[in-house]
Amino acid sequence: MITAYGYSVSGNCYKVRLLLEQLGRAYRWVEIDSSKGETRTPEFLAKNRNGRVPIIELDDGRVLAESNAILFWLAEGTSFLPEDAWERAQAMGWLFFEQYSHEPYIAVARFIRGWTPLDSPRRAAELPRCMDRGHQALAVMEDHLREHDWFTGAGYGIADTALFAYTDVAHDGGFDLAEYPAIRAWLARVRETPGFVAMPEPTTENAALLAASSSS
Amino acid sequence: MITAYGYSVSGNCYKVRLLLEQLGRAYRWVEIDSSKGETRTPEFLAKNRNGRVPIIELDDGRVLAESNAILFWLAEGTSFLPEDAWERAQAMGWLFFEQYSHEPYIAVARFIRGWTPLDSPRRAAELPRCMDRGHQALAVMEDHLREHDWFTGAGYGIADTALFAYTDVAHDGGFDLAEYPAIRAWLARVRETPGFVAMPEPTTENAALLAASSSS
Repeated sequence: MITAYGYSVSGNCYKVRLLLEQLGRAYRWVEIDSSKGETRTPEFLAKNRNGRVPIIELDDGRVLAESNAILFWLAEGTSFLPEDAWERAQAMGWLFFEQYSHEPYIAVARFIRGWTPLDSPRRAAELPRCMDRGHQALAVMEDHLREHDWFTGAGYGIADTALFAYTDVAHDGGFDLAEYPAIRAWLARVRETPGFVAMPEPTTENAALLAASSSS
Repeated sequence: MITAYGYSVSGNCYKVRLLLEQLGRAYRWVEIDSSKGETRTPEFLAKNRNGRVPIIELDDGRVLAESNAILFWLAEGTSFLPEDAWERAQAMGWLFFEQYSHEPYIAVARFIRGWTPLDSPRRAAELPRCMDRGHQALAVMEDHLREHDWFTGAGYGIADTALFAYTDVAHDGGFDLAEYPAIRAWLARVRETPGFVAMPEPTTENAALLAASSSS
């Protein structure tokens, strides 16, 4: 049995739960609210010295960190990761694109708008750059999706899982997807894949901050 | 024949060249100075819409982007990537750690100090956070290396290649490695691996900026 530790409304954690569901794997979910410091306790740091969720733990206590490394491990030998070495490397390329060029802007914008106070200095200091770089990442995705149904290979795979997680809630970060029709069509295709589960809604408190951010 | 496009003094590009050398692969190197906008030309964007180096190109024109995806592709089936699925996933975990928790601080600090003017507003705005987060990443590495000689498995592999690139020039970013003896011993072990080549020195202009940053 796999034990997954994660914060349900984090895209990085959700992507692991989504793939576990789609693979039909048995797992136990342990909620760790990283926004409340629960990844910085001595007990959690003993599992992941880098103090981040998600992680997965096996019955013998071995731990794997980094959301996209977890997707990779879960997907090996399944249809979610291509067998061809070049195609597999292309999937990895998209996973690194997601963590380097997409998540640090699109996920961080969402976090600032929904998980920091309305008077947080991070809003003025960081959001403009998040918007600029986030739209650059969305433009790269739109270009790809104009010519391909999926990010790698002939069907849905972990590059799609990883990119779906924060793209599907990009509006929380203030990104209007109206100008990205190919992305919107792909998001709809992902939602139709077998075993799909949606990310849970944020708490009332975080939802109120997101709503106030959108109306301001 | 592989054609690698990269900026020689970028750690992300150097790591690809280092592995190509260590594998003894035949390759052609095309210098692309990303600090002078050469990754934003229409010709380059046609190869990588995300406008970043390194990329590799095969003779048939197919392109692979993202430094760590390139390492993964080059290393598959060699001793540089473990055969065991769990160990391979651990290697991926370190590669994602490198791109998410290490490079954005340690490489960016080096870039700001050596590739932006001494009066750049980025120095005051970004360097303090780079130092803080960079030291957090180094502490995670030091903890691991106190108990292990290499980042995954029994020998040198691509997790080491990826983490070596910017750690070995961390001093350029203002990071003193004196407090990290296990990292320093590991850096020395990497330098002794077969086929090792060092990163070239920056230009006189960039070296002067780095020196001025260290003395200020």
